Amino acid sequence: MEKKLSFEQLFAFAQSVFEAMGCSREDARIAAEHLISADMSGVDSHGVARLSGYFRLWEAGRIEAKPNIKVKHETPSTALIDADRALGLVAAPFAMNLAIEKAKIAGTGWVAVRNSNHYGIAGQYAKMALPHDMIGISMTNASALVSPTFSRERMLGTNPIAMAVPTASEPAFVADFATTTASNGKLEILQRKSASTPDGWVQDEQGEITRDPAILKKGGSMLPLGSDREHGSHKGFMLGSMVDILSGVLSGANFGPWVPPFPAYVPMPENQPGQGLGHFFGAIRVDAFESTESFKQRMDLWIRRFREATPVDPDQRVIIPGEPERMAEKDRSMYGIPLNEAVWEDLKQLSERLKINF
Amino acid sequence: MEKKLSFEQLFAFAQSVFEAMGCSREDARIAAEHLISADMSGVDSHGVARLSGYFRLWEAGRIEAKPNIKVKHETPSTALIDADRALGLVAAPFAMNLAIEKAKIAGTGWVAVRNSNHYGIAGQYAKMALPHDMIGISMTNASALVSPTFSRERMLGTNPIAMAVPTASEPAFVADFATTTASNGKLEILQRKSASTPDGWVQDEQGEITRDPAILKKGGSMLPLGSDREHGSHKGFMLGSMVDILSGVLSGANFGPWVPPFPAYVPMPENQPGQGLGHFFGAIRVDAFESTESFKQRMDLWIRRFREATPVDPDQRVIIPGEPERMAEKDRSMYGIPLNEAVWEDLKQLSERLKINF
Repeated sequence: MEKKLSFEQLFAFAQSVFEAMGCSREDARIAAEHLISADMSGVDSHGVARLSGYFRLWEAGRIEAKPNIKVKHETPSTALIDADRALGLVAAPFAMNLAIEKAKIAGTGWVAVRNSNHYGIAGQYAKMALPHDMIGISMTNASALVSPTFSRERMLGTNPIAMAVPTASEPAFVADFATTTASNGKLEILQRKSASTPDGWVQDEQGEITRDPAILKKGGSMLPLGSDREHGSHKGFMLGSMVDILSGVLSGANFGPWVPPFPAYVPMPENQPGQGLGHFFGAIRVDAFESTESFKQRMDLWIRRFREATPVDPDQRVIIPGEPERMAEKDRSMYGIPLNEAVWEDLKQLSERLKINF
Repeated sequence: MEKKLSFEQLFAFAQSVFEAMGCSREDARIAAEHLISADMSGVDSHGVARLSGYFRLWEAGRIEAKPNIKVKHETPSTALIDADRALGLVAAPFAMNLAIEKAKIAGTGWVAVRNSNHYGIAGQYAKMALPHDMIGISMTNASALVSPTFSRERMLGTNPIAMAVPTASEPAFVADFATTTASNGKLEILQRKSASTPDGWVQDEQGEITRDPAILKKGGSMLPLGSDREHGSHKGFMLGSMVDILSGVLSGANFGPWVPPFPAYVPMPENQPGQGLGHFFGAIRVDAFESTESFKQRMDLWIRRFREATPVDPDQRVIIPGEPERMAEKDRSMYGIPLNEAVWEDLKQLSERLKINF
């Protein structure tokens, strides 16, 4: 039978694990909140399922639980942050808050982060801009799993982009997506079901099309959004590259195939050109352009008009970015967060080892 | 036989046409330069092939040849511009220059433009940032030809995004792409050849897959990057939406299905919520984050590493964004810009009508 836990239960457990790593109570709270928010949004691959992975990274000495996060350089609208190997879950909200503070004065704020770790889901930080009547932008590079068009070498991460836009009475517009055809999470689901992927999601070590969802474990790679050249995979590659450049090259983090892997047992790439992995955040004050009220009304109109776009099938209307995550949140706040057997066992082992109640 | 003209010949002709519309000598020069640069980069669909289209828009009273382009609002890092129905080819460089000036002081500059017209190719303006050691960003919305995932109604334009990044000794990284699976220009090429499109480029009026490249003339629509839901078309839709929101909603221009059409004979959409169409530009000073020299060295490393990524086919290595356009430029500066019969006839008619030498 499927097991379910509430946000509060998972949050409390995650916070205790982060404290056991040596995080301050406040950092542990922030990290747990952002981590479990992924589960709440239905992005199971990036939530509590990764908790023991973060713990192992810390054990391997690749995460600093008491980081000295420093602003290395700044201008009125920008800052560069050295995250001192912090949890991405701690470095990212720090950076996004700074972007928001910059935007209050300069109209926009843009913060690049180096020397960080995986930060969970991108949308989480973009959404922090909403209560300030700002548009929030968040992106990160990640360890290489994706081959550029015409290549069979893993060169880019799934490099997600998120943008959150405030509205008047409609729920916020929140786009949050990996720059690949499919997400890693979807491959994991298919592996558990022993099902095949559609064509165009992954390729094998030789660059041949395959439908094996476990191909990444056999030297295969994911494909950029667009799948193949004929369907625009060079555009997905460009998009993933833009994220890599802003997050990794601009910040002084690693980039391309040099980004540190998430699994602690995978050795670090050699001759790394930067520090840790990188993120890039933006906050755009709406009234740095137009009146907030009029903008929000137009966003409401945008959302309503797109929701009413003539559907192909009358039973399936256009999905507004952010809707699926909000539906998951609603469902999970009522019925709890489902955990599959593997994740449940993994968390139980962690709890026994750390003597934390689960 | 295919006809060819040099950049100088086409530039001089285009400048004369813009002057005949009443543009100042300087505006006509700027517009002609940006227009013919599209031809030089190999993007024939957005170059001189559109000249008579611009002329007809002016005849229809939808372009103001002597615009009073105004900064309506600004902060240290932002500005909102009302382009007064200028040629996009004139409004866009004005706005990008302002973004660059803002970036010099505030670290970054972000300029939204409303009440403008089609601006040609996005990359053209992004590249203006390069000599200033800045990263340039350019995007625009456009008249609706693209259906969101699950819809058969044209709701978005091809909404391109461009980003140009300075380098040390390697040529600059210049990504410039429509947020659709294929570009309109590619459909036009297939129509001239009476060839079919691959699956996943377009759909018919009922939302059924079709391979007819002329389907847009029969109520069909283009598909967002990703082609279908299974291959991530919802991501292409999100990307096109982000461009629409930053270019159209934030600036007070029209957005979604209300963006003015390019062909002058197509009536304006009713109940338009904004003015003209909209663009969004960004300039990011590299040294607002890290030392310019070290950044450029890392970009060179990025480019070299990606160029050397293991190819699937040894004869086809990874293409670095910007390479195809640079190759076209090299070829065309030596051998001239090829014009197909239809474009040649169109320009000849225009020249006879305006009594301009062609």
